[in-house]
Amino acid sequence: MSETLELLICVTCRLLDAPADPDRPRPGRVLADALQGQMPAGVTLIETECLSNCKRGCTIALRGPGRWTYVYGDIDPAQAPIIAEGAQKFRDAPQGLVPWRDRPEHFRKHCIARIPPLVPPLEAP
Amino acid sequence: MSETLELLICVTCRLLDAPADPDRPRPGRVLADALQGQMPAGVTLIETECLSNCKRGCTIALRGPGRWTYVYGDIDPAQAPIIAEGAQKFRDAPQGLVPWRDRPEHFRKHCIARIPPLVPPLEAP
Repeated sequence: MSETLELLICVTCRLLDAPADPDRPRPGRVLADALQGQMPAGVTLIETECLSNCKRGCTIALRGPGRWTYVYGDIDPAQAPIIAEGAQKFRDAPQGLVPWRDRPEHFRKHCIARIPPLVPPLEAP
Repeated sequence: MSETLELLICVTCRLLDAPADPDRPRPGRVLADALQGQMPAGVTLIETECLSNCKRGCTIALRGPGRWTYVYGDIDPAQAPIIAEGAQKFRDAPQGLVPWRDRPEHFRKHCIARIPPLVPPLEAP
């Protein structure tokens, strides 16, 4: 099975301080559009519904088999190039563990949660 | 491969408003001890280091192959029975998706993030 790395983007959150305009595109939707053509090779953009970080949206997550999962919040769609950079560094780092000083500043300051790799149990002999 | 469900507990966070007493047990440590003997069958308690939710600890996560991952925060070690109940409901629900009204109240109000199941790519024919 080839390794599949994913950038999840919640496309359902509204900005909490934005006017309640139902026609206004959601920030995650704008971010996803802005990332078209900017995604690093080997990382698939996945649009998702609620990542349950609604108070600190918009929200993304980076994950893949055998890797740490990172959830980041408080993202402005204008930060698309920073998200693409962070996704590339996640791709290139063993287990997705990018050294602290190499992470984009927004990732250092707005990490919502991280979850260690799911290690499959050993097969019975 | 048998299914392995896990309850991760961050045992490194201090309480932010607690006195800086290095000898005081961390709340995640106390919670993990309290859960000994209370864990539902089929869910393994895993002590972890930082889940990066330090401002809203103590922090737990429920996850397993093919399931949603849920991160919960603001947990008091005295809530061990509630955590065990939530873990059992997570175990018994398809993909870990417990109906909203059936979730423990603390889980409804203090969900930090959730991440959809990692769906393996289809094998090439």
